[in-house]
Amino acid sequence: MDYLMFQLEKDTHTPLYEQLYNEIKGAIIDGTIKEGAKLPSKKKLAEYLAISQTTIEFAYSQLVAEGFISSEARKGFYVQNLEELALIEKESPVIVMEEKEMDTISIDFSPGKIDTESFPFSVWRKYSKEIINDVNKDFLQLGHPQGDYVLRQQISSYLYQSRGVKCTPEQIILGSGTEQLMPLIIRLLGKEAIYGIENPGYPLTHHLFLDDKQKSIPIPVDSEGAVVSKLDDTNATVMYVTPSHQFPTGAVLSATRRSQLLSWAYQQDNRYIIEDDYDSEFRYTGRPIPSLQGIDQNQRVIYLSTFSKSLMPSLRIAYAVLPESLIMQYKQKFSYYAATVPRMDQQILTKFMDSGHFAKHLNKMRKIYKRKLEIVTKTIANFNPIVTISGEQSGMHILLTIRTCKREEELIALARQTGIRVYGLREYITGDLENDSDPQIVLGFGGIDTNDIPSSINALINAWEIRKTP
Amino acid sequence: MDYLMFQLEKDTHTPLYEQLYNEIKGAIIDGTIKEGAKLPSKKKLAEYLAISQTTIEFAYSQLVAEGFISSEARKGFYVQNLEELALIEKESPVIVMEEKEMDTISIDFSPGKIDTESFPFSVWRKYSKEIINDVNKDFLQLGHPQGDYVLRQQISSYLYQSRGVKCTPEQIILGSGTEQLMPLIIRLLGKEAIYGIENPGYPLTHHLFLDDKQKSIPIPVDSEGAVVSKLDDTNATVMYVTPSHQFPTGAVLSATRRSQLLSWAYQQDNRYIIEDDYDSEFRYTGRPIPSLQGIDQNQRVIYLSTFSKSLMPSLRIAYAVLPESLIMQYKQKFSYYAATVPRMDQQILTKFMDSGHFAKHLNKMRKIYKRKLEIVTKTIANFNPIVTISGEQSGMHILLTIRTCKREEELIALARQTGIRVYGLREYITGDLENDSDPQIVLGFGGIDTNDIPSSINALINAWEIRKTP
Repeated sequence: MDYLMFQLEKDTHTPLYEQLYNEIKGAIIDGTIKEGAKLPSKKKLAEYLAISQTTIEFAYSQLVAEGFISSEARKGFYVQNLEELALIEKESPVIVMEEKEMDTISIDFSPGKIDTESFPFSVWRKYSKEIINDVNKDFLQLGHPQGDYVLRQQISSYLYQSRGVKCTPEQIILGSGTEQLMPLIIRLLGKEAIYGIENPGYPLTHHLFLDDKQKSIPIPVDSEGAVVSKLDDTNATVMYVTPSHQFPTGAVLSATRRSQLLSWAYQQDNRYIIEDDYDSEFRYTGRPIPSLQGIDQNQRVIYLSTFSKSLMPSLRIAYAVLPESLIMQYKQKFSYYAATVPRMDQQILTKFMDSGHFAKHLNKMRKIYKRKLEIVTKTIANFNPIVTISGEQSGMHILLTIRTCKREEELIALARQTGIRVYGLREYITGDLENDSDPQIVLGFGGIDTNDIPSSINALINAWEIRKTP
Repeated sequence: MDYLMFQLEKDTHTPLYEQLYNEIKGAIIDGTIKEGAKLPSKKKLAEYLAISQTTIEFAYSQLVAEGFISSEARKGFYVQNLEELALIEKESPVIVMEEKEMDTISIDFSPGKIDTESFPFSVWRKYSKEIINDVNKDFLQLGHPQGDYVLRQQISSYLYQSRGVKCTPEQIILGSGTEQLMPLIIRLLGKEAIYGIENPGYPLTHHLFLDDKQKSIPIPVDSEGAVVSKLDDTNATVMYVTPSHQFPTGAVLSATRRSQLLSWAYQQDNRYIIEDDYDSEFRYTGRPIPSLQGIDQNQRVIYLSTFSKSLMPSLRIAYAVLPESLIMQYKQKFSYYAATVPRMDQQILTKFMDSGHFAKHLNKMRKIYKRKLEIVTKTIANFNPIVTISGEQSGMHILLTIRTCKREEELIALARQTGIRVYGLREYITGDLENDSDPQIVLGFGGIDTNDIPSSINALINAWEIRKTP
């Protein structure tokens, strides 16, 4: 049958998976799809309908759960006998799927992964043991809404020393991740704020702007980072940037652009810069670049960072440094909010920082990631000039540019078929795409074991049917 | 001088503290307030201007920081010599205040406090030690966006057994507190949703509705809980309720009202009930009341609860159980979101529940809180009929009604003067107040040591100048 017959509308309130589910169910009930017929694979149907495989997965799972189709391992999905359907209880639990996809990934180049071989479990365990103790009864109750003062003191002095950020502990707000802090900042800046966002950029924050119905304006990114001059053509009031290591291109915002950006902010009273400094701990070449917050003279930078890269993503401790003008408003507006970070974790982290273990850990990890990056670079050099690298000055992901006639989606799908997860640059782009440019792949190397890097990269490039340069 | 001269406008975009700060600064600069003059106490000025003491505190702190006034311990605030002001560097850090108020509270009847004497630190420490281990490297990386499956399994079976909640782990979403989960639910239900809220009710959720510019309609509460029939006069589509132990009145939603509420939800396709079951673990009299979610036949209840009362507020683990219809939408809409609860804490809690320690802890704590409540009731009985109790069937707070000619604010202020923190019912009320009713005080007893309860309550009632009934 022709699966293109399905009429899916992207603009209605009914989710796509539900539309698809209804279409297929209808077709089974009215006999358009016969008993025993094999449905197209999720991948194929996703390509046909130009929607995500997850959507197909949801629709198929629902149909399996309701007994319209059956899933046969390694074979596919088959339409069931409708008479048997009558036997299926209406109240049976409908949702049966869990994400099984994970299991089929053997090499994961996700930019969010870190090295897990070198985490100082014994030190962390020691401090946990000290904190989880009867003498610390008070840590069971809620602490300061912005996070425990002792931890904010540690962060404030760390930020000053390592990033040139100038702030008092009073300006710091702890939160359980960017997911939790950004919506607060968006509310704080008010409904009138219009956001300039990097394009390509970080999908989570972009999603938050969209979801809050905040107006956001994509600002292009080139090899010097966000093209700040483009801001002048817009009515943006807040610019969200990742200046130390642009996500996902890896570009570093140039000195000229930095001062342009600050000047832009100083031109009007309501202008702010949100500086997301998510992975600046790891810089491998050249002098460390101080934060924008540190060179700002007029309290216009909201500085945002996290322990996700420097310690572990699963710790869920992020923080924002607010300018003095905003911190008072924050205290008033969010007086009802308790801190979202577990207090014992705050206290363990405080000990870890105060004892010097954090600085030590960062130095160790910087060497490890630098070594990983060197191996990545060396391995990929074999495929030069077909595959080239950019954005390799810091952090734990780089950008690959591939000179090939294959499209980006094809490259991702080819990798996926051999159990390798990579992300295409197009996934991070807002609006129209330049179709004539070479495909680009965001390659996170933090989570790959040092020894596995050459074979993993060779497997990836092999999947793309690219051969070594002789 | 007459401090009523200050013109504060509540409807402008300038925060009140900033207006007040500007007014006082202006008066100092133009000489209306002379050098050496003593400013009124924060309390007095708050009463004069009918604004909160915190607002005054912000304004005074700012003036102190900028050198316009000085704070002299145990004396008050004095206007400084203006010539000296010129010496103060403009760039000196402006924000100097931390919440010192805490220190002056010796007895805290906040409803959010729990008993900290009986927490099983040794068991918690043991499981932490097991989890924080090299073999668990994978726990450093992000886990499932809804929370680790093993913990959701534990919660699902606990909820079924203890609260009659019927759900699969797939319907559960973990989050770092109501602060973090409610905004997600509000977004999920969409901009068209109109919320019925209990009046009086839980200020945090009310604040969230307001802040999201969601329309919310106060629904009155009486001794049987929310007056559900009033919903019919409104165009509300979602009702937010605390049926097991209404916050803050302590009323239990009656059986009749429960079925009324479900019927209301069934009348239209877009209607939902948000059941916030925040402290239902602790019920002291009569049979346990099953959750609304458990008796709902049509997937219209969003169930919300937390470990804040049952374990500790500072753990920051809450959860929502979504109906099947909403969970699919959730998965699509929030695909970018990582779980906000640290993964090691999720794993420790899993062990704690799986080993039976959670059930054991709840049984122990139920006895402790029951004993505390008995002492509270007995102590207050001495002041009957001037002081009476309601809402004492479950949880860790009750409602006091005081037959006095004093206003609620006076009672709170009198308590505060002797270092006792209590909250008045009016703080939880939206809209107009009935001025002729007796003042009511929300009294949390969870955080007071069992042995200290009689003296603490006597101190409170003594502060109110109420004598024992002979």
